[in-house]
Amino acid sequence: MTVAGFPIWQQLIQERIEQALGSYLPAADSPPVRLHQAMRYVTLGGGKRVRPLLCHAAGEIFGAPLAALDQIASAVEMIHVYSLVHDDLPAMDNDVLRRGKPTCHVQFDEATALLVGDALQSLAFHIAAQSIPNVTAERQLDMLALLANAAGSRGMAGGQAIDLAATGQSLEIVELEFMHVQKTGQLIQAATLLGAHVGGAHPDELHNLGRFANRIGLLFQVIDDILDAEASTDALGKTAGKDAAANKATYLTLLGSKPARAFADRLCMEAHEALSSFGDNALRLHQLTDYIVVRKN
Amino acid sequence: MTVAGFPIWQQLIQERIEQALGSYLPAADSPPVRLHQAMRYVTLGGGKRVRPLLCHAAGEIFGAPLAALDQIASAVEMIHVYSLVHDDLPAMDNDVLRRGKPTCHVQFDEATALLVGDALQSLAFHIAAQSIPNVTAERQLDMLALLANAAGSRGMAGGQAIDLAATGQSLEIVELEFMHVQKTGQLIQAATLLGAHVGGAHPDELHNLGRFANRIGLLFQVIDDILDAEASTDALGKTAGKDAAANKATYLTLLGSKPARAFADRLCMEAHEALSSFGDNALRLHQLTDYIVVRKN
Repeated sequence: MTVAGFPIWQQLIQERIEQALGSYLPAADSPPVRLHQAMRYVTLGGGKRVRPLLCHAAGEIFGAPLAALDQIASAVEMIHVYSLVHDDLPAMDNDVLRRGKPTCHVQFDEATALLVGDALQSLAFHIAAQSIPNVTAERQLDMLALLANAAGSRGMAGGQAIDLAATGQSLEIVELEFMHVQKTGQLIQAATLLGAHVGGAHPDELHNLGRFANRIGLLFQVIDDILDAEASTDALGKTAGKDAAANKATYLTLLGSKPARAFADRLCMEAHEALSSFGDNALRLHQLTDYIVVRKN
Repeated sequence: MTVAGFPIWQQLIQERIEQALGSYLPAADSPPVRLHQAMRYVTLGGGKRVRPLLCHAAGEIFGAPLAALDQIASAVEMIHVYSLVHDDLPAMDNDVLRRGKPTCHVQFDEATALLVGDALQSLAFHIAAQSIPNVTAERQLDMLALLANAAGSRGMAGGQAIDLAATGQSLEIVELEFMHVQKTGQLIQAATLLGAHVGGAHPDELHNLGRFANRIGLLFQVIDDILDAEASTDALGKTAGKDAAANKATYLTLLGSKPARAFADRLCMEAHEALSSFGDNALRLHQLTDYIVVRKN
């Protein structure tokens, strides 16, 4: 059997996720119409879907059913999308461009953007609570707790709070790392672990994937920092140069360009190493790791 | 055995809930400190705890363990508190007073208030996903789905969107009812049903409690409308006269004062009737129904 190349696999999963998200979101003509239109506007038709790709790639190690992975990956992606909508609000990053389109509060209004984020978070947990074939209800409760923890004040929302407090402050590299582990790392780790849970992974396997995801989360952020400084707004689909404009500490400002690239290389190597026990079954995770490094947006 | 009077029972449950909420919330000195302080500021030390009281009262019909009821009631209350924090934001109701204290964005800042709401919602689902003695994991997943649905775009967040869209518009009474069923009714119903689930209620029992909770939800809102117009800011602990100032349709403006009171009386009677099959076991729900009518804030 020949295995499809990475770009083909990536596109296949992205299409599956687009379809799944569309089916979970309320119809655009069901009331409240404006809210549901806005929920679909921010969720559909864009994004790299890095978290769903990680979820699928991890699940494939264990031969997890694709439909079950679509389900849990959709829940994770909705948590991610809600955080983008709230982060873009005037009280936070005050951004006007996201995934190449006007941000939610620009296209609709602030109150709608606030409610869109709130409702997407609820919907994510609703999806994650629907029964998953071959997954015991006990394991699914653990998965829900994992997702809730990754999203909350000790995860993503907490990282955002640290980020806000740190803007304009000088940070140590360990503080920067702590912030990113919370702000983006935990949800990336959750996406990976949830995919493995769907496949019935054992504790030692989850442990190794947790180590992998920790490196991937940081790697993703280091590359993000480099792209923010070096790529164009057009290429990114979001405002470039925001970190410098906001006087934010980044891996680039703390380390410099060449050491930041070297740090990324080391994280990339450690991520690959963490997958060693899975052999060829981890092909997609290896490919995803390389993709995260070479991506242009 | 003598049964404690309602005020004593109410205070006992309120104290239990205060304690439970405090134990579930991250410590005020754990990072991110400002976020955790703000989460505790908005959640602790105030509020009538109507939803936890309903949850306990419904659970007591079936002899549910109090600690398990504390757990699920805390999850519901956190969903409620997060919605208050977001509703008070300048982009929404722009309010400065809540439970007799400055609102979160006034006491802290807008970005913190946004994240407090987000993190409280995550924490609510984290609490609801922790195992509950004597409740099967399958039932608990159903309970999580119920809570998520009540909070989302077809429940509380959706009702808030309809409310925003309706401000300044003329509404029919059926539209007003639809808005309130979503905005407050569904979470009140969820609180009641979740308490019953913890006690192992059967489908027909849940059905009757659902009917009860539907009437209670509307009753609560009619009385809220009357209090907003007739009580003082001091007595309410939140800004009085907001509906009129915002030119909002309310039961009072649509029906007039006397018919609104008569409507409340009818709802109150129907709520009591819906409990008939539970006999004396529903004592606390009967008492709560009367309390909702005579409350002063």
